[in-house]
Amino acid sequence: MRPEDCLRQGERIDDLQTAGLRILQHPARFLFGTDSILLAHFAHAPKGASWMDLGTGTGILPLLILARRPLDRFDAVEIQADAADMAARSVALNGLEGRIAVHAMDMLDAPAFFGHGRFDAVVCNPPYGKRGCSLQNPSPAIAIARHEVAITLPQVVSVAGKLLKNGGGFFLIHQADRFLELAALLQAERLEPKRVRLLHPAPGKHAHLVLVEGVKLARAGVSFLSPLFIHEEGGAVSAEMHAIYAGEHDIL
Amino acid sequence: MRPEDCLRQGERIDDLQTAGLRILQHPARFLFGTDSILLAHFAHAPKGASWMDLGTGTGILPLLILARRPLDRFDAVEIQADAADMAARSVALNGLEGRIAVHAMDMLDAPAFFGHGRFDAVVCNPPYGKRGCSLQNPSPAIAIARHEVAITLPQVVSVAGKLLKNGGGFFLIHQADRFLELAALLQAERLEPKRVRLLHPAPGKHAHLVLVEGVKLARAGVSFLSPLFIHEEGGAVSAEMHAIYAGEHDIL
Repeated sequence: MRPEDCLRQGERIDDLQTAGLRILQHPARFLFGTDSILLAHFAHAPKGASWMDLGTGTGILPLLILARRPLDRFDAVEIQADAADMAARSVALNGLEGRIAVHAMDMLDAPAFFGHGRFDAVVCNPPYGKRGCSLQNPSPAIAIARHEVAITLPQVVSVAGKLLKNGGGFFLIHQADRFLELAALLQAERLEPKRVRLLHPAPGKHAHLVLVEGVKLARAGVSFLSPLFIHEEGGAVSAEMHAIYAGEHDIL
Repeated sequence: MRPEDCLRQGERIDDLQTAGLRILQHPARFLFGTDSILLAHFAHAPKGASWMDLGTGTGILPLLILARRPLDRFDAVEIQADAADMAARSVALNGLEGRIAVHAMDMLDAPAFFGHGRFDAVVCNPPYGKRGCSLQNPSPAIAIARHEVAITLPQVVSVAGKLLKNGGGFFLIHQADRFLELAALLQAERLEPKRVRLLHPAPGKHAHLVLVEGVKLARAGVSFLSPLFIHEEGGAVSAEMHAIYAGEHDIL
């Protein structure tokens, strides 16, 4: 699809700086953040895997993950019809219609629609804020992406558990201070937390975010990977963050 | 007490390199390790606090912690009578009989003996190995210190929960891969994990140990402190570890 055919009012096209990919974004609605780039870098699966993205928003996770996985395929659900439409146009803009299918759908309906035990890997960049617990953005589009308005964390985890094959991985990012709540929810759905990476704004600072991989029906025992520092001591972006932005992958 | 009056066969006196403290150790039985130094550095309490050490071994934790807390007091229990006797002689060697009381006692009896809700802070460097899960040392003394022979982790946590005042902290160190099991046990005893510090052998390596503070009846929400690297990239002991060995304290 030609760029001029897929742009709607208020939207812009951004270069993802990796594998020639571009993405449509609507600045007044929601722009993808560093957390999506970190999650895409953290997620892994066997070659040729079938992936699911729960609440894909702009479609950033399928685009970034498939950029380095030429044999894989993605289904992505998004409850907001206009966001799903924009994500689908981003997919078309990159000529990836055959490998990424965007569905305008409530993720709660996904297990019935796609079937249980269907995916090798599920990713989700869920809303971080508890419903009613913090200031919500007056824009419903942004509130849905940032707060547990349309979906709660237990619901997200339950959906992921149903969609995954045994041995499949659920990859998500969340606030570090909610890690124990998240781990308990994962364990309740038999998605055992196996790989955890804490993200610190800089050396000497407490972790603010956490990347977690829960593996369906795995035995207990968790690995805390080497932590990731976003900035160096002096305030510059760390060398590892630069490598992640550049699409280098070596943390397994 | 004069050194020559407190030494028994096979024992030696080691200089703790901090506050002029010395400690008796029996090399064929058990020598304290870096984990005790890290745990002593991690633990904190209000000035003048009353502390409990569950399974004190050589008495290393009370000695190190009181070295920087002149107003505090320690009770310490140890199930092995000969180890308790040696720890008591170390206390006497340092002239701390008025501030550290060593009790030859099964920690399971401690809540009934000392009373519930009695302590501001409880520390424990528990055995890391599950009973029957790994090679046990043929020496019973070392096996008790390293494996869950005399006590299991759920029992340790339950005892700590009973002994602590509301708002008091339970400080322990354990294997990082058992962190989620430990966190669930703490939560079951209403000792909410509030501060966690992961220890990595070096940058780029997975965590091998974890320091945890559970606070009695605290609300949920955990802080992951800046990680501690034991060695630097090149293999030398890290500057922070040197500072901890030297008794500097600044991680709160």
